[in-house]
Amino acid sequence: MAVYTDVSETDLQLFIADYDIGQLLSYKGIAEGVENSNFQLHTSQGNFILTLYEKRVNPNDLPFFLGLMDHLAGNGLSCPLPIRRRDGETLGVLAGRPAAVISFLEGMWPRKPSVTHCRETGRALAAMHVAGEGFEIVRPNALSVDSWRPLWERSAARADEVEKGLAIEITQALDALEAGWPKGLPEGVIHADMFPDNVFFIGDELSGIIDFYFACNDFLVYDLAICINAWCFEPDGSYNLTKGMALIDGYTDVRSLSAEEVAALPILAQGAALRFLLTRLYDWLTTPEGALVVKKDPREYLRKLRFHRAVDNASEYGLRRAGHIEETAP
Amino acid sequence: MAVYTDVSETDLQLFIADYDIGQLLSYKGIAEGVENSNFQLHTSQGNFILTLYEKRVNPNDLPFFLGLMDHLAGNGLSCPLPIRRRDGETLGVLAGRPAAVISFLEGMWPRKPSVTHCRETGRALAAMHVAGEGFEIVRPNALSVDSWRPLWERSAARADEVEKGLAIEITQALDALEAGWPKGLPEGVIHADMFPDNVFFIGDELSGIIDFYFACNDFLVYDLAICINAWCFEPDGSYNLTKGMALIDGYTDVRSLSAEEVAALPILAQGAALRFLLTRLYDWLTTPEGALVVKKDPREYLRKLRFHRAVDNASEYGLRRAGHIEETAP
Repeated sequence: MAVYTDVSETDLQLFIADYDIGQLLSYKGIAEGVENSNFQLHTSQGNFILTLYEKRVNPNDLPFFLGLMDHLAGNGLSCPLPIRRRDGETLGVLAGRPAAVISFLEGMWPRKPSVTHCRETGRALAAMHVAGEGFEIVRPNALSVDSWRPLWERSAARADEVEKGLAIEITQALDALEAGWPKGLPEGVIHADMFPDNVFFIGDELSGIIDFYFACNDFLVYDLAICINAWCFEPDGSYNLTKGMALIDGYTDVRSLSAEEVAALPILAQGAALRFLLTRLYDWLTTPEGALVVKKDPREYLRKLRFHRAVDNASEYGLRRAGHIEETAP
Repeated sequence: MAVYTDVSETDLQLFIADYDIGQLLSYKGIAEGVENSNFQLHTSQGNFILTLYEKRVNPNDLPFFLGLMDHLAGNGLSCPLPIRRRDGETLGVLAGRPAAVISFLEGMWPRKPSVTHCRETGRALAAMHVAGEGFEIVRPNALSVDSWRPLWERSAARADEVEKGLAIEITQALDALEAGWPKGLPEGVIHADMFPDNVFFIGDELSGIIDFYFACNDFLVYDLAICINAWCFEPDGSYNLTKGMALIDGYTDVRSLSAEEVAALPILAQGAALRFLLTRLYDWLTTPEGALVVKKDPREYLRKLRFHRAVDNASEYGLRRAGHIEETAP
């Protein structure tokens, strides 16, 4: 629920004049999103999204994010396309912030994801991994295994306020993850935040993926582990094996998983659960009471972490085909 | 910055099916507005606004608000038009709340109103007063002079936290307003909240008026007094006489003011200033610290109240034509 920066219509007119997107007719701040200020523009040429990058985004990462969307869209993925100004640039400055205009993606994110949504999301995730090949800018994952201990140390002293015994439990999980984290798996550009609110559908058809502002280079299958966490658990905390099957089937329809990737899935799923547990825990402990932000309960990811720690092998997530699967066209 | 109620895409599809507005392609929560939850819909027929009426709106008032917009648009005023469902109704239920789809109004509200904006606003205000004639539902102004003392009593004990001496100053102003409030002025439907964020422009041309959720029956010229407060002061607190002239000229181009209305303008302007001072003061004292709501400083309206209390007659606001002025077509 965030528009951090209001924009005056005169400043916006001046900014828009550098683009070939027609006459500005209206703009409205969008309530969703917490990192940046987003506006829906309506011009004589249709709808567009205007994003002002707020301080949580490192300006040095913007060429990666905008270049990636351009690369992915160029390779046929349905995702927002940064609009070029007349000087060829995709990044400008508005209200003192880096700002970009991107194409408007039709569709709605599923509040209650279905099995079909999960299958289509798996396919789109793999299609993104394939479409990302050849993208030349590199952005290491700042929220992978190496970052978790320093992040944890910022919450550790107060963790038991959330649940008694949490500090010991997280420390043990973190020790195990650091010791057992896999090496040498296939790497590439991952989305890293492909939650339901970042995947748009019209009916059962996936219309596109948005919000590449956590994208980075990491193990491709770690992205699948994040999606298992984000898409396949029910509100009561139970794991929906049918959704897991659909997600993984959808993924492997488009990109095969190696035996090493399959073997690593349980520990990667634990890691993904811990990553979201740690950021939510930190936000939970530091967001002031009364702030009109929906505080996301970190215990949701504690339950998921416990589930993954009890998993023996990837078949428990719904993986039905072991070893290499021939790659098919997306 | 408010969307209080999220809507699932399946619920929205079902709701939309009662309307002839085409296939739903996207919807996004709008950050602006504090009373209701608003979404911008994009369908195969274009853009629409979906409003969910939250608890600050009395459901019994909705036939007035929606009927008024229908009446005004039917009389040629550029304002949102409630879209009728196939059963002829304009009001439905979505996510457990009364909900309506209204037409999308192009344009942008002026962050820094110009003299031209003020003139066009004056014209549009008068055009609204004329277009409102014949509207049959009546809604008394719940925020007029009779309501101010009970409202004041909810803040009085803490008023001096905002500024020393404020309690005495407000009590004196309120006593004077209750004693001197005019009677028998021409009445009709007033907007009652025509601040810059409720008036849309494309360039210098006014494209429409929105947000009729404070509209009610009261003295027509009281609406002009509200606009004088809302449009004609500069951020440093000074009164911009050129803007005042433009606003009043614009108004009287379309609807004449009687000698009684002109004479009452200073006390009505005081009343309008006190009305916004009192609601802002209450919100200021009761909104918790840290809440992500922009708390509007009540002292802005204290300064305006002081200005009006020193005004002798309407010419000080920029009124250049006294007495009756023949009515011209809008």
